[in-house]
Amino acid sequence: MLADQQILRLPGPSPIPPSVSRAMAQPMIGHRGQSTADLLGDIRPGLKKVFGTSQEVLILTASGTAALEAAVVNTVSPGEEVLVVVTGAFGERFADICKAYGIHPHIVETEWGKAAAAEDITEMLQAYPAIKAVFMTYCETSTGVLNPVKELAEAIRKNSEALVIVDGVSCIGGVETKMDDWGLDIVVSGSQKAFMLPAGLAFIAASERAWHIIETNRQPRFYLDLKKHRNNLLKDATPYTPALSILFGLKQALMLMEEEGLEGVYARHQVMMKMARSAFKALGVPLLTSDEDASPTVTAIRPEDFDAEELRKILKEEFAMEVAGGQQQLSKKIFRIGHMGYCSPADLLQAIAAIEIGIVKAGKKIELGSGVCAAQQVYLNGGMSR
Amino acid sequence: MLADQQILRLPGPSPIPPSVSRAMAQPMIGHRGQSTADLLGDIRPGLKKVFGTSQEVLILTASGTAALEAAVVNTVSPGEEVLVVVTGAFGERFADICKAYGIHPHIVETEWGKAAAAEDITEMLQAYPAIKAVFMTYCETSTGVLNPVKELAEAIRKNSEALVIVDGVSCIGGVETKMDDWGLDIVVSGSQKAFMLPAGLAFIAASERAWHIIETNRQPRFYLDLKKHRNNLLKDATPYTPALSILFGLKQALMLMEEEGLEGVYARHQVMMKMARSAFKALGVPLLTSDEDASPTVTAIRPEDFDAEELRKILKEEFAMEVAGGQQQLSKKIFRIGHMGYCSPADLLQAIAAIEIGIVKAGKKIELGSGVCAAQQVYLNGGMSR
Repeated sequence: MLADQQILRLPGPSPIPPSVSRAMAQPMIGHRGQSTADLLGDIRPGLKKVFGTSQEVLILTASGTAALEAAVVNTVSPGEEVLVVVTGAFGERFADICKAYGIHPHIVETEWGKAAAAEDITEMLQAYPAIKAVFMTYCETSTGVLNPVKELAEAIRKNSEALVIVDGVSCIGGVETKMDDWGLDIVVSGSQKAFMLPAGLAFIAASERAWHIIETNRQPRFYLDLKKHRNNLLKDATPYTPALSILFGLKQALMLMEEEGLEGVYARHQVMMKMARSAFKALGVPLLTSDEDASPTVTAIRPEDFDAEELRKILKEEFAMEVAGGQQQLSKKIFRIGHMGYCSPADLLQAIAAIEIGIVKAGKKIELGSGVCAAQQVYLNGGMSR
Repeated sequence: MLADQQILRLPGPSPIPPSVSRAMAQPMIGHRGQSTADLLGDIRPGLKKVFGTSQEVLILTASGTAALEAAVVNTVSPGEEVLVVVTGAFGERFADICKAYGIHPHIVETEWGKAAAAEDITEMLQAYPAIKAVFMTYCETSTGVLNPVKELAEAIRKNSEALVIVDGVSCIGGVETKMDDWGLDIVVSGSQKAFMLPAGLAFIAASERAWHIIETNRQPRFYLDLKKHRNNLLKDATPYTPALSILFGLKQALMLMEEEGLEGVYARHQVMMKMARSAFKALGVPLLTSDEDASPTVTAIRPEDFDAEELRKILKEEFAMEVAGGQQQLSKKIFRIGHMGYCSPADLLQAIAAIEIGIVKAGKKIELGSGVCAAQQVYLNGGMSR
């Protein structure tokens, strides 16, 4: 096998564009100097656009989980009630964080592979009027579900004063996000998914309404105290040492998104989602999610007549191609293809062609090329066919 | 379109493996110091293996053309007769160099797209017994022909004392080369093709028989005087300033070839050739060369019912994918896909899938996915079917 090739089709980490790698290789600069201030000044407007907000998007040097924790400890206090919408492994993480802080989570859970429904949330909010915040996942990485956060937020606002808190780690930058227009109060993301960067930075923004609560919240916190982050960022600074090389990369990644245009970025992810789905439908291999619930950044496939783990092993051995397996209850039952960030329709065609070979090697009879053909047709029809 | 993506499927330059790029980014070292001596000492054995020779493979800081010129000026003198085997643009270059030095080239020419035949060469050698050297091209980049240099060399040796001089720029490192066993006297290659490096280095090796002639040859030359290069390389040095960063890269590229194994590298190129050929046969798009004459590093396609230049433009615009056009008499009539060096079967599947879309957009009706399917079948059959 060709040495040194690695085809990363995971739902994070995602591949790094060469110009971002080059940017990250810049020599270090002092993080208290003017150069870092200039860098942060360049980054701030771009991040706001991606989040769809006029608020500052704060930059934590941390993994996404720390930003989820920041969303909890800055807005809710011990003993308070919250609602956690669990559609997979990352919904559960919100609940675990709440429990660790003595916060009482009510849970709305859907079958893994299905999106959350507004009615279920409305019902819970009416049953438990003391709920202070609703935590939900935009793209549930573990299942490839994109929850309809705009509709869910609308339902919450209609029924409650609870804050709307959204984990957008595995999709923001790849799917449209209108934090302000949709009435989201806290939105979180991470660097290693659609932002085309290595892990190490997490992003978090808060609405005016959320800031009032953050300012008066008495939950003890230090590194994750968002007030300090905002006070610093407004002066183009960070409260603690930032992961400078990833900031260099972030500036470049935002420039690439600007160059393609955010509308173009979102359209590309939509087309890739439709290409992937059409391919597996043509191959007769079941998708985990419905078309309505599917995420533009990751597609989960639940094979019935071959082994998902064997396929993954074959792809790795034959093509140095990595796709993800299932997590927790879906462990060994599904495989997941990441198509986010630095991934093009041509890259997806490659993944599908290789996976077809893998499926044959895993023992299922398919018509070779038929998945590629279906994806090509989606591409040629402008990605608008389903 | 995804910004910063570039899919290079040219017959040179070829893509650079990430570890080679990283190696080339090492800080400069003095080219007269021990570090450079160590570097050259590490490189020498690997280059010999790739050339299939126990002779030193000299490293010129130059493009391939300079090494072709070195092959001429070190072995032949003004007024002498040589035979040049012309199967395309690069055969012609050898003739041009000879003429520039007052050397008289007899020409054996084949139709572009066909390999040279031993009989034609034998006939010329018998007709012109004063011929001192025969110049030929191993892979003719302009047509995708692999000339049977082993058989041609055999025929030359049987009929003449002429030196056998081979331009292997666009295939050595990707196809088996047994300089010593096959009785080749001078073999030339370059860095930017199957060696997975940027352009800037050229390689040249000479047989014992050739060295006797080189040592007494009176053609004026300085930078290209192979004696100086050999005298230095035997002491792990270069006579003039070397392109150090490409030497860093060369060491790493040779390590990657070693890791895959040369047999593995050659088998991969064979499979890719067969995949490409099967795909275009299935699509009903004519290949320029016969199966027998085809090169494992580049495939030339001569479409009849769509425009090659339009296809190239579409591939560039839609997928940032570059394939080559035709040269000279084949200009605008063919397109050429490079599948050499840092290129895997998965990369070729991607190229075929994208080209299928391009062909449809260029106006030809094809069965989408059928080229990919044919290539997948070749891959699954171990690449041994034709």
